[in-house]
Amino acid sequence: MNSAVSEPALIGIDWGTSSLRAFLIGTQGEVLDSVSTGEGIMQIPDRNFDAVFDRLVGSFPSNAGLPIVVSGMITSRNGWVETPYVTMPTGPEHLARSLVRHQSQSGALIHFVTGATTEHISGPDVMRGEETQIIGSAALGLSDGVFVMPGTHSKWVHVAGGKIQDFATYMTGEVFASLKDHTILGTLMEVGDFDLPAFQKGVSAAQDRRANLLHDLFHVRTLPLMGKLKETETADFLSGLLIGTEIVAALRKNEAAKRVTIVGRNDLADRYEIALQAVGISCHRAPDDIAAKGHFLIAQAAGLLT
Amino acid sequence: MNSAVSEPALIGIDWGTSSLRAFLIGTQGEVLDSVSTGEGIMQIPDRNFDAVFDRLVGSFPSNAGLPIVVSGMITSRNGWVETPYVTMPTGPEHLARSLVRHQSQSGALIHFVTGATTEHISGPDVMRGEETQIIGSAALGLSDGVFVMPGTHSKWVHVAGGKIQDFATYMTGEVFASLKDHTILGTLMEVGDFDLPAFQKGVSAAQDRRANLLHDLFHVRTLPLMGKLKETETADFLSGLLIGTEIVAALRKNEAAKRVTIVGRNDLADRYEIALQAVGISCHRAPDDIAAKGHFLIAQAAGLLT
Repeated sequence: MNSAVSEPALIGIDWGTSSLRAFLIGTQGEVLDSVSTGEGIMQIPDRNFDAVFDRLVGSFPSNAGLPIVVSGMITSRNGWVETPYVTMPTGPEHLARSLVRHQSQSGALIHFVTGATTEHISGPDVMRGEETQIIGSAALGLSDGVFVMPGTHSKWVHVAGGKIQDFATYMTGEVFASLKDHTILGTLMEVGDFDLPAFQKGVSAAQDRRANLLHDLFHVRTLPLMGKLKETETADFLSGLLIGTEIVAALRKNEAAKRVTIVGRNDLADRYEIALQAVGISCHRAPDDIAAKGHFLIAQAAGLLT
Repeated sequence: MNSAVSEPALIGIDWGTSSLRAFLIGTQGEVLDSVSTGEGIMQIPDRNFDAVFDRLVGSFPSNAGLPIVVSGMITSRNGWVETPYVTMPTGPEHLARSLVRHQSQSGALIHFVTGATTEHISGPDVMRGEETQIIGSAALGLSDGVFVMPGTHSKWVHVAGGKIQDFATYMTGEVFASLKDHTILGTLMEVGDFDLPAFQKGVSAAQDRRANLLHDLFHVRTLPLMGKLKETETADFLSGLLIGTEIVAALRKNEAAKRVTIVGRNDLADRYEIALQAVGISCHRAPDDIAAKGHFLIAQAAGLLT
């Protein structure tokens, strides 16, 4: 679209638990080049983060002297440098003021985006990396509203006035995997292609006003036992029941939400879209490369871009 | 108490998934002798139920010609003889009419108590063995009311007019084990002695009107991460959160319940008592050997006792 080739202005790295993505970012915040690898923080031999970092930066030939911003679980206790959390509300300026500087063994100056925390009456919540993606997504024409970030631990994020006001984590993905693989519910499951009606049936069960998760889970066993659900349908029924339960609870906390922006473009994001539509919520999808946009906005607010 | 020694009148066997208990029962329904073993249906080599059965019956020297009633998961698909389910409501007479007869290889006539099913709007529910225990418990002066049977899959049973009217299964115990052993929640856990305040804190979180299980579970991680819960407290906090969630949901279905009878005398039953008291419900404990009392009442109703 943009015929003028922008100059490189920034390197951004979104470094998570199981994968990472490095971006070469132009003067307008656009992604000029990117590298993805499976080198999440739990996959680094001998925790040699310096070696991975040097290779990533070296993969962009025009890296000389560019500022470098890094976000994600890389700043957690199991990461490279543990950083504190910022509190709510937070936005690009706040995150820029909270950047943690660290010099790599090769002499590069790294600006770590620190994680974010919020305090609910029921307990604290935390995220690392998602705050940068949401900042990027919110700037890309989506602005205020409710965002959902499907994943092993999904996040619901509330943005208003250009700032993250609050967020909550749901363990849905990890609960699904542990129930499927390590309880009696998995014994009557044959996992095959996505079964839309079975998934919708699970979402519908979650919507019932008498829904009662610890009990309803048992239907994942009794329905096939009684011949009322095929063994090829039970995994998607369980998926719908759990995602539906999450969505009902999250929307109760965000009652004004009429529209939800889904961050992600994988199969899991598709499931959230189906389930949200089933409860009458219209969905938008966040654009790609929002982490890079977040790196750019934070670097800009920090005065790192010349 | 009873100085007159009663004559043997019946052999009853409560044969479950992971253990069994065989009773020699007297003419007044009292237990004269009993044998417990770990030979649940999933632990029988070559599924040779006949060999285990013959040894059990042979362990009571005065077994000659006694009627034999057997209940539990032994009548499930993975058991000895699969039997159909009776529907609600059910009581001793109904269960007596539904006994399934089977001759062992050694020629003994066995009367299997069949399982029970109920249909909720959300799906079917099933039990095998608990119906016999509840029949026995309800006869022992406890009569009508709400019973909870803690376990891997706990059961809540509603009895009125001397009959089981309805019941519901909660997967709480198995969910606890799979979350503890197979998710990130277990990584910040040191399991030690029972920590009452941590358990009560979990129950209290479950009672909050904004309680939201898939989200609240994440606090099992964030609270120790933030130094707000010790690693020795997290397992009991999770236990309290799950048992509390079950109790809040079950009492919503049984709003008139002021008193709950807990079936069981183990550590898990103690946890349910603590959690029920925390929500203002008074508890009673079912007496021992209620399965034998159930076997006796069903045999009596079937005219098997001479």
